[in-house]
Amino acid sequence: MFKNRLRSKQLWDRIVSADEAARLITDGMTVGMSGFTRAGEAKAVPLALAEKAKRDPLKITLMTGASLGNNLDRTLVEAHAIARRMPFQSDPGMRKAINDGEVMFIDQHLSETVEFLRSGQLAPVDIAVIEATAITEEGAIVPTTSVGNSASFAILAPKIIVEINLSQPEALEGLHDIYIPTKRPSREAIPVVAPDSRIGVPFIPIPPEKIAAIVLTESSDSASTVEPPDAETNAIAGHLTDFLLNEVRRGRLTERLLPLQAGIGTIANAVLQGFSETPFHDLTMYSEVLQDSTFDLMDAGKLNFASGSSMTLSTEKHMRVLSAIERYKRRLVLRPQEISNHPEVIRRLGIIAINTALELDIYGNVNSTHVGGTHMMNGIGGSGDFARNAYMSIFVTKSLAKNGAISRVVPMVSHVDHTEHDVDILVTEIGLADLRGLAPRERAKVIIANCAHPKYREALADYYKRALLRGGHTPHLIEEALGWHDNLRRTGKMLASSPVAT
Amino acid sequence: MFKNRLRSKQLWDRIVSADEAARLITDGMTVGMSGFTRAGEAKAVPLALAEKAKRDPLKITLMTGASLGNNLDRTLVEAHAIARRMPFQSDPGMRKAINDGEVMFIDQHLSETVEFLRSGQLAPVDIAVIEATAITEEGAIVPTTSVGNSASFAILAPKIIVEINLSQPEALEGLHDIYIPTKRPSREAIPVVAPDSRIGVPFIPIPPEKIAAIVLTESSDSASTVEPPDAETNAIAGHLTDFLLNEVRRGRLTERLLPLQAGIGTIANAVLQGFSETPFHDLTMYSEVLQDSTFDLMDAGKLNFASGSSMTLSTEKHMRVLSAIERYKRRLVLRPQEISNHPEVIRRLGIIAINTALELDIYGNVNSTHVGGTHMMNGIGGSGDFARNAYMSIFVTKSLAKNGAISRVVPMVSHVDHTEHDVDILVTEIGLADLRGLAPRERAKVIIANCAHPKYREALADYYKRALLRGGHTPHLIEEALGWHDNLRRTGKMLASSPVAT
Repeated sequence: MFKNRLRSKQLWDRIVSADEAARLITDGMTVGMSGFTRAGEAKAVPLALAEKAKRDPLKITLMTGASLGNNLDRTLVEAHAIARRMPFQSDPGMRKAINDGEVMFIDQHLSETVEFLRSGQLAPVDIAVIEATAITEEGAIVPTTSVGNSASFAILAPKIIVEINLSQPEALEGLHDIYIPTKRPSREAIPVVAPDSRIGVPFIPIPPEKIAAIVLTESSDSASTVEPPDAETNAIAGHLTDFLLNEVRRGRLTERLLPLQAGIGTIANAVLQGFSETPFHDLTMYSEVLQDSTFDLMDAGKLNFASGSSMTLSTEKHMRVLSAIERYKRRLVLRPQEISNHPEVIRRLGIIAINTALELDIYGNVNSTHVGGTHMMNGIGGSGDFARNAYMSIFVTKSLAKNGAISRVVPMVSHVDHTEHDVDILVTEIGLADLRGLAPRERAKVIIANCAHPKYREALADYYKRALLRGGHTPHLIEEALGWHDNLRRTGKMLASSPVAT
Repeated sequence: MFKNRLRSKQLWDRIVSADEAARLITDGMTVGMSGFTRAGEAKAVPLALAEKAKRDPLKITLMTGASLGNNLDRTLVEAHAIARRMPFQSDPGMRKAINDGEVMFIDQHLSETVEFLRSGQLAPVDIAVIEATAITEEGAIVPTTSVGNSASFAILAPKIIVEINLSQPEALEGLHDIYIPTKRPSREAIPVVAPDSRIGVPFIPIPPEKIAAIVLTESSDSASTVEPPDAETNAIAGHLTDFLLNEVRRGRLTERLLPLQAGIGTIANAVLQGFSETPFHDLTMYSEVLQDSTFDLMDAGKLNFASGSSMTLSTEKHMRVLSAIERYKRRLVLRPQEISNHPEVIRRLGIIAINTALELDIYGNVNSTHVGGTHMMNGIGGSGDFARNAYMSIFVTKSLAKNGAISRVVPMVSHVDHTEHDVDILVTEIGLADLRGLAPRERAKVIIANCAHPKYREALADYYKRALLRGGHTPHLIEEALGWHDNLRRTGKMLASSPVAT
């Protein structure tokens, strides 16, 4: 087995322990690690680095693809080893450190990080730490369950630590398609013209002498934290399916729809799962993360092909899919996140983009990131890459949170990640608002009527009615616009009349 | 002359008066008119339509490229002929009707309107009204000083009214490059790989039988409303030049920079004009509107080539450029706004995008459209197309407005058009804030120190300091965040201490 995993003999002498490899990382470095939505992250070196930081304090800038699994963010934060973090995270410990101001977090569109790196607009990566299925005869790196930013980190860094994870199936080799845009000012078109376009090579090509250390590991990816569908997510899926069926009836879409994107998380996953029960067929995905629903749709004979940057699965699905990966492989591709999320490709293919809102307002602005307008949840991730450039940009959320103390539909969102210009369709379990071609005053009526929970509908309508008296393209009572958030902060609920269940 | 202008003899019998042509437009229709930032709009039929509406009330949906000149928006609004307007306007009368709720305005990214039309996601265009330099032997339309959405309107509409404007020089023929993206799901890459790429044909190809009426006109385009540089715009240009020179010194850019985009308006125009006095050379533009500064830079030997969707010039520059258009033509191209503003091309070329902010906040969010968070100014235009996908996204504004009653730097913007994720550099006459790679808490410090006017600096620093006590990734006092706007609404100034000059 070992020979298949490290096929370049000249690199055999680079094998070291995780502790030895971690010594290559020193205070002040920028470290680019593999890992995207809890898949394919380096697993041993970050832990060894945390141990080292406890003995001998150091702080690094940590760049990844997206979120890490295996509590790595928490462990590194507890060791006070992180000064700066980008471009995405989803860890409670990291989140606290960010909101406390201990860690400086740069919340970026996932397609952009390596563009900034490549052009010298961010501090350069000093060392890359990449999980691999194998290293080829030529010393190229075969990624595991995600690509993320791994290819560019490895290509741009002067030094690379590779973790060969023996628990990742060898059959992952061939799944990846590594393509790096050519240099400006003579950059060429990115030749992806369909979700199944293969345009690169199935490994990360690097000069093997850059591989400074190789660590053998066996830990698994963490299971996804996605919860199973419930009555409300089923209702959301139902509204969206009805809407799309109507688009088909009107001749705007066919039953093959257009390539689908679904953001990470319970609601978007449930919505896709709901497509199993529809007349839609021969579907394709051009998404960033492939969740359980991707494989459910494939197994149901609904989905022909899925392109992503990572596979993030539940324990059960992980075992089933990875053990049969050879069978799924011809219908899958994993790409660098720069390509999975590239504005060029998203606009060309005409993606139907489904992402989750944290809150939305009566004019269609969406907050995806900030609780109460101030506290970071996870980050914008790829939602902006898709929403801005999609054929159709859909945001989904439940209408209530915290047992009804919070309405997800508010007069004005407390932070804007997706502007009114980028939001076409809003869906809650209450219903769906089709905002296409509507002015703000028209949007307000349909969002309040179709998406707000009945317990908050009257208060929203009252706000809108009073705001209307002041006039304007987007009427607001500016002194009250964020009042619901202030109530929540002070009293634990948005309105005195909030229906808080006991 | 006439023969050169209408070269298809079979269309000679379509020549009618503007009044006759306007009869083709009836109540409830969606009308797609040429015109982009006061250039190349149809001039006679809209006036005849307004007269008709006064006699016999009607309401239409008016779609254009961008803003119209010759007071057409005002005239149509005064005739109560407009029910809906998209995707941009800049007329005081239209603005008032929008803010009064008489006209429903759909404020769209300029690259998106025809994508939505083509896919049936907006109501179809019933009739197109297009200004032309000429109609070719085959009945194809040669646009004038703008392309805007004219090509798609003419291609998608079942009927077309053409206004041949005899005052537009015949030599405009050959200036345009008309390319329409191929159909999904097999859309190809858009083959623009440099600002001077020509990828289409120099006319709008349509079946000539769709031309229902031809009107001969002679009115000129309106002059641009751009004001000459002043001490503050010169200071902004100076800060930006110093910054870009430093980028060159650091090896991130060469003295050729990257293709430039500059939004419509006095400040962006002044900034480009300022490049005449710099070591930058062999510059190119890939922009939407070509203003006076484009031709100043060409005349100064600094600019090699400019791609845009329109030419919007002062009276003096208009006369000089249009009379010598044959000489400029080989260094110019006018494209459909879908292509001039296309995310695919903008990301590929690596644009340096310079757009104007109405206000910005201490965390780098930008409001481009809404006065006081409620009242529409002009619209987002193409700023979002460029800011999201640019190599570097720069926003410029003066630090004060209304004699100091208003600070353009506020604790929280009252409307968000460009999120913190899309803003790299902010410049006022006070200084420049480089936000690349900074977390919100870091951005606040640099924006307050470098961009805010000294008269407001202390109040902003005090807000930030008190917000910090509450913690969070993006600290805010949510109950005070929009307080400056509320003060302005109630008292006419943002702070009791606002330095209002008499």
